[in-house]
Order: sequence, then C-alpha cells, then structure tokens
Amino acid sequence: MSDLNDVLSRIDAEREQTLAEFVQLLEIPSISSDPAGSAGIAEAADWLKKKLSGMGFDVRVVVTEGHPLILAHSSAEDEGRGPRMLFYGHYDVQPVGEEDQWTYPPFKPTLVKEGDITRIYARGASDSKSQLWSFIETLRCWHLVHGCFPGPVTILLEGEEESGSASLPAFIETHKEDLACDVAFICDSDMWSPTQPAVTTQLKGLLHEKVTLHAPNPDMHSGYFGNVAANPIRILSGLLSALHDEEGRVAIDGFYDDVKDIPVALREQWQSLSRASYHLESADLRGGIVENGYTPLEAIWGRPALDINGITGGNQGPGERSVLPASATARISFRLVAGQEPATVRNRFRDFIRLRIPEGCRVEFEGGEGSRALAMSPENPFVQAVSRGMEREWRTRTILKGSGGSIPLAEMFSDVLGIDCIVLGFILASDAIHAPDEHYDTERLHRSIRSWAYILDEIQSMRE
Amino acid sequence: MSDLNDVLSRIDAEREQTLAEFVQLLEIPSISSDPAGSAGIAEAADWLKKKLSGMGFDVRVVVTEGHPLILAHSSAEDEGRGPRMLFYGHYDVQPVGEEDQWTYPPFKPTLVKEGDITRIYARGASDSKSQLWSFIETLRCWHLVHGCFPGPVTILLEGEEESGSASLPAFIETHKEDLACDVAFICDSDMWSPTQPAVTTQLKGLLHEKVTLHAPNPDMHSGYFGNVAANPIRILSGLLSALHDEEGRVAIDGFYDDVKDIPVALREQWQSLSRASYHLESADLRGGIVENGYTPLEAIWGRPALDINGITGGNQGPGERSVLPASATARISFRLVAGQEPATVRNRFRDFIRLRIPEGCRVEFEGGEGSRALAMSPENPFVQAVSRGMEREWRTRTILKGSGGSIPLAEMFSDVLGIDCIVLGFILASDAIHAPDEHYDTERLHRSIRSWAYILDEIQSMRE
Repeated sequence: MSDLNDVLSRIDAEREQTLAEFVQLLEIPSISSDPAGSAGIAEAADWLKKKLSGMGFDVRVVVTEGHPLILAHSSAEDEGRGPRMLFYGHYDVQPVGEEDQWTYPPFKPTLVKEGDITRIYARGASDSKSQLWSFIETLRCWHLVHGCFPGPVTILLEGEEESGSASLPAFIETHKEDLACDVAFICDSDMWSPTQPAVTTQLKGLLHEKVTLHAPNPDMHSGYFGNVAANPIRILSGLLSALHDEEGRVAIDGFYDDVKDIPVALREQWQSLSRASYHLESADLRGGIVENGYTPLEAIWGRPALDINGITGGNQGPGERSVLPASATARISFRLVAGQEPATVRNRFRDFIRLRIPEGCRVEFEGGEGSRALAMSPENPFVQAVSRGMEREWRTRTILKGSGGSIPLAEMFSDVLGIDCIVLGFILASDAIHAPDEHYDTERLHRSIRSWAYILDEIQSMRE
Repeated sequence: MSDLNDVLSRIDAEREQTLAEFVQLLEIPSISSDPAGSAGIAEAADWLKKKLSGMGFDVRVVVTEGHPLILAHSSAEDEGRGPRMLFYGHYDVQPVGEEDQWTYPPFKPTLVKEGDITRIYARGASDSKSQLWSFIETLRCWHLVHGCFPGPVTILLEGEEESGSASLPAFIETHKEDLACDVAFICDSDMWSPTQPAVTTQLKGLLHEKVTLHAPNPDMHSGYFGNVAANPIRILSGLLSALHDEEGRVAIDGFYDDVKDIPVALREQWQSLSRASYHLESADLRGGIVENGYTPLEAIWGRPALDINGITGGNQGPGERSVLPASATARISFRLVAGQEPATVRNRFRDFIRLRIPEGCRVEFEGGEGSRALAMSPENPFVQAVSRGMEREWRTRTILKGSGGSIPLAEMFSDVLGIDCIVLGFILASDAIHAPDEHYDTERLHRSIRSWAYILDEIQSMRE
C-alpha cells in the first residue's frame, strides 16, 4: 500500500508537467480520415514512440497500408509476475469539420477556466488522446516507483480508429504473438457521469454504408428539365425518409429478425439507471425518434440503430445554381446488437433500396465489412478488478453500462486472440466528441491517471 | 439586298477568325457565383470593352456592388434611322462543379470533330458566350459593310446572370435613359432543334429558397445519440419528400391557387409540338415525375415547378464520420407561371415547412425576391420580324415556344422600361448547359451570326 501511495504522490506532484506534455500531443493534427492529415499522423506516432522509449519500453512503429500502429512491450523481467496486460488507445482524431464553428482553434489547445473546472479545448482532447495519455502516465509513474509492472505490459496505439481501422484486422492476424496477453484494457469509453466511473460491458456492432443514387442523365439545367426528369435528391430523400416507420423502428424488411432481446435482468438495471443518466441529460432529445416501447437509454444501448451521417447532392453553394444533379449521396451507419450479422444487415439494406429505385435510375453502394456487437460478463474477474480500482479513486460505485458506440477492435481481440476485453474510459458524451469545440478537463485527466494506479494495484492483488 | 449579301459574304469569309476570337473569350474563367471568379469577370469585361470599342461603339464598364455591366452605344448618327434596339447578353458563366467529371478542361476550349460537326468544349461555350458573340460579330460585319445600323444600337452585357443578377434592378432603375429603346433582343434562349430556329414567347418566373434545418444540439457522436436525438438529415429528407404528391403535383397548400391555366389554343399548339421535341429527346425522362394530366412539354413550359437543386448535411467525406449533424441544408427553386407571385409562393413554402418542423428544431430560410413569369404576343411585329429573319437562314419555320427557364431581366425591361422583349437564341438543351463538358458547335456559331444579319435586314425593312 505504501508503494501505491508513492505512485499516487508522484502522479499528484507531476500533475502540471503531465498536463503540459498532453498539450503538446494535442497540438499534433493527427487526422486519419483526411489524406492531408498524414503528416500529423506521422508526427504523433514519432512523438509517442519517443515517449514510450523514454519509459523503458521496447517500441516499434509498425507500418501498414494505412496509418502506422505503435507496439510497445515492457521489459522481459515482467514475465511471470502476473497477468499479461494489453493497453489499447488510438492517437488519431476526427476531422475538424467546419472550422468556423469552433470557438477555439482545434490544434492550438486552449485552457479555459469555467467555474470550478479548467477545460482544455482541442480536437482529440477527449477522444481519444486523453485516454491513452491516462494509462501512459500511470505506467510511467508506476514504473518509476516500483521498477516493474504487476505483469508484462503491451501497449498498442492505433492511428486510424477514426477512419475505420482498415489495417487493424491484418495487423492482429500477423501479430498474434506480439499481442498475446490475458486481458486487454481498451481505453476508449466513457464515464457514467463527471463524478462516477463506469465499465462498458456491452458494445454495438457498426456498419457503414454509402449509397449514391444516379439519375439516367448527367447534370442538367433545372429550368430545362426540372419539372419532368428524375431528381436524385428528391428520390434519395424519399428513400431516406422511408427508412424509419412512425414507431421509430427501422423499416427495412427483416431488420429485427435476428435481434436478440435485451435480457430482462439487464433491462431492469438499465431502467433504474435511466432515471439519472448524465449521458442523456447532456443532449436535447426533442425532435428525435425513440423506438416505441423502449426508453432512450435502452434504445441507445440495446436496440439496433440506423443513422444518416451525411448527405450531398447538387449545388453546394455559395451561390445559387439551377442544376438538376446527376446524382446524390447519403452516408449511413448501422449500430448493431447481439444476434445481428453485419453482412445480413447490409444485404437487407441494399435490397430495400434497390427495390425502391425508379426505373432508369441506378444505385451504387460502398461499405466495409462492419463489426458485430459484443457483451462482457459482469462476473469477469478483470471487470471486477477494474470496477474496484475505479471505486477507490472516485469513491462511488462503478456502473456497468452499455454503449451506443462501437469498438470493432474488441470483437477482433476476442475472436482472434481469445482474450478478455475490458472497455473503460474517462471521457463524457458532453465533451463535444466528433464535434466543434471538443474539450476535456484537467481534473478528469488527473483523476483518470490516478484511477489507473488503483486499477494496477487491484490487478497486482489478483495474483496474491 | 446586295448589301445584305455583302454582310453574309463577309461573315462567311471571316468564319475562322471569328471562331479564333471566340475561343479567346472562352478561355477567360468568368465565373460569377464564386468569389474566386472575380479576376476572370474583370478580364472578360475588359476584353469585351476593347472588342466593342474597336467596333466604334461608345463603351462604358459600369461598376456595381456585384460584377460590372458593359454598356455600349452606337454612333449618334444612327438616331432616327429606325427602331432603337437593345441587345442583351451575359458574359459570366456557371461554376465548373466537379472538375473531374469534365472530359475536356473547362477553360481550355477544345475543338473536337464528331461526325459532321465540330464541337467546342468549354464552360460558357453555349451558355452564354456563344449568344453574345453571335450578335457582336453580326453587328461588326454589318457596320463594316453599311457604315451604320438600321437604328440606334445599345449593347448591354451582364456579368452576374448566373449568380442571380443582384445588381441589375438598381442598374436598370438608374440607367433608364441609357437603356431607352423600342425593342430588346434578349439573346439567352434556345433553338427548337439543331436545324430549326425558335423565339421564346413564354418564360417562367424564378424563386430560389435555401432552407436549413437545425437540430436542438450541436454536432454529436452518432453512436452516443444517434438512435434517439433529432437527425436533421432525416427530418429534412422527410420534408423534401413531402413536397410532391403522388400525382407529381407540388403538395404545398395553395400552391396552385393563383396559377392561370395554359390557354386552350396554346395547349393545342404545344401538344402538336410535343410530338417531335428535340429538347425532350435530348434527355432520359425515366424516374421523373410529370404532373398528372399534362405532357412533359406542357409541364416544363406551362406548369409551375419545384426543384431541389442541392442538399448538404453532416459528413461530406472522403472518409466515414460517425456524426449526428447539427443541421442540414437544401437549396430549392421554384419556376413560376402566369398568375403566381414570387412572394406568395415563398410564404406558402415557408409555412409548409414551418408547420412540419418537429418540436425543438428550428428552421432558417434565405432567398431573394424572385421574378414573375412573362408572355409575349405572337402578333408582336418584332417577334414576327425575328421569326422571318431566322426562317431565311434556317429555311424552315420559326417555332414560337415556351421555356422552363427564367430570364428575370425580361420582366424588369418590360416593367421598368416599358419595352418589348424578344427572347431568342441558338443554344440547345443538349449543349450540357450548367453541366460538365458544356459544348457548342462551329456550324451553329456561324449560322447564328448569319441569322442576326437576316434579322437586322428584317428590322431595316420594317421602317420601309
């Protein structure tokens, strides 16, 4: 216990230095989905490699067809000391979107004191640089105090999580030995509230589909043909608005056929959680559609979803243009639950669209393989160890929660490596994740680092 | 008659030189709706000023809050010789749109021999540089032969027709004396077919509306809130798909209340024209919706239309982005017929949308004043003179046609200056107007110049 106190004291003492270094990481524009972001990705990978090497890790930057992965191993001396632990985080960030919607520049991190807390505004401040930074700093302080870890540590930092993790499946297949471990901590999830920790034991599957509707003509003058020829925007709008019924259900034929009901016991837990959900309170749900018969929290965590993430067609401005466009495109994502196969959902969606395409028009689809939903037992010893560790820092119960989000990696780890995946994290839906003015706060950054110290201490106790 | 033959001979003899100079004009990227196009606009205005000055015109480039207008007058010696004629054209062009959809570069005019004709590919090759070039070259050759015109000539060349003619109303008001004339030839319309000329005696009114739907939240992570919070793309799609009913009618309450029926005699003429319409045959109408009870030609020329010209919301690519966007925008245009007031249509549209906005969401509208529809009597002596002139060149009947397009200028000339507006031109819907690979052909360019010579000859005969 005195060693743990030494670790916590060091974390407290180095709080400012830790923050200053975090700001440096946030300054690097590591946008993975934009080809222009490659330089930022390379810079961030290099920065992290130096950081981990300086901590005594054996670090490799693994080049892929996409963006590089960072793979780090602790000293061989940790072998046999306890469970082999893999820490996962991602250093890439979402695109900025419309820069003029940001109050603070996305890659010049700005600290703003707001009431009792100090916010850090920057792209990636929350999702997900704060997350990897928390376990890196804990591991650093832990090692300085103990000279070793509670078991062999592998760190895996990904550079294309926000752009679909295209290189990850092949990487995992070819690096099974490098990744061999007993438990993976996937630090990419959220707390229950700013003051209450959580482990995410249910994740949704994810499937992206891009659908482009082509009219039989190229772009034409809308005055000349507008009242009579096919308008892809009108047709696509009709298709999109037919995707949900009035009960808030997805109207694709057979969409719910394979869906497993939320287990009754879990539903009861979730319903009690619904009553005070920081997550739900952080948004205005008016104008939304919730599937009939479910609470919003049940709908997010336990029911499959279809969202339209983007639409583009014809004139994009700034001025007016009397064009009847040749095509229009929508970007759609599905969030899947237990029982649903991405390939089946994709086929049903494509059939739904194809059946409704007017004569003479043509539809084109693009989409990846997608991932399945994943559930972790609350009885898992690592789930319990992590829960206990976080409870010691936050002095309140750790919530075992679901998520509307997806971490395809967790499915791969569990399928290919056969390991337990513990999904946790310290971000909040109210951090403006994926949005302008994304932010985090210095208090959470500090306490997340302390939380990991307690978690490592719990892991250490497991072997005793 | 021998003088006319001299004019025609000169036009024939200078055919290549005329084409070479036209290509120079096409090289200037005079895009009016894009702020980046200002340099091209200025260059085109300067080029045309020099051209007209060289022809003996008194030329002014009139600066406006938008793009400059070119105003040119022939020598005072033409006073009293015959009807005062105003020639209108516009030297600005549509934006390029997606440049990778062009086979030929939009501002490096490319001549391609295709069967019997030689096509000129360039933005503006058809709409509308070919049009102003036709009367400019005729006037030049006519003056070289005759030393004068059949009456005083004013040339007005606009630089922002493709971006809404915002400066034109004020210009016309303040330049009534400069524009005083007996007839305006608005050279911005199309032929009936590649071999048959037309005068456009009916034009539609035009109203643009931009509608933005705002959700009650900023951009959010669609995994976190996608299944429950308002999705502006979904809501906007629903609104857009509700704008037409299954009969192909616009579903806005009261939309048809003020619409004047197409006169029975005119309908009969149009129905006979429908049987062989080059215009209609130039596009594939499958997938379109034609108002029940009307032929496509009647729908285009004589029935009001609502077109969606653009839509934008959320992720625009290239990669995937799990965003639930804060807003989505559609760009809509109305083509109005006799009886409809733009302000009334706009209010009805806005009411239609406002009534259907879900609680918590907000809608924002932007739009100009719009213009009314316009009709010209077939008995008008200038309509008849122009028809006769074109028949002499094309050796076939001149069709008096309607249009689905709009020329707000014609309404202004007729309202403010009280003059007859004769709308004619030589372009074709199949020229890929407003679209990639816009083109014209050298034969039409040549014959349009000859056509104007016959028209001037007919005007000259009117005074005799």
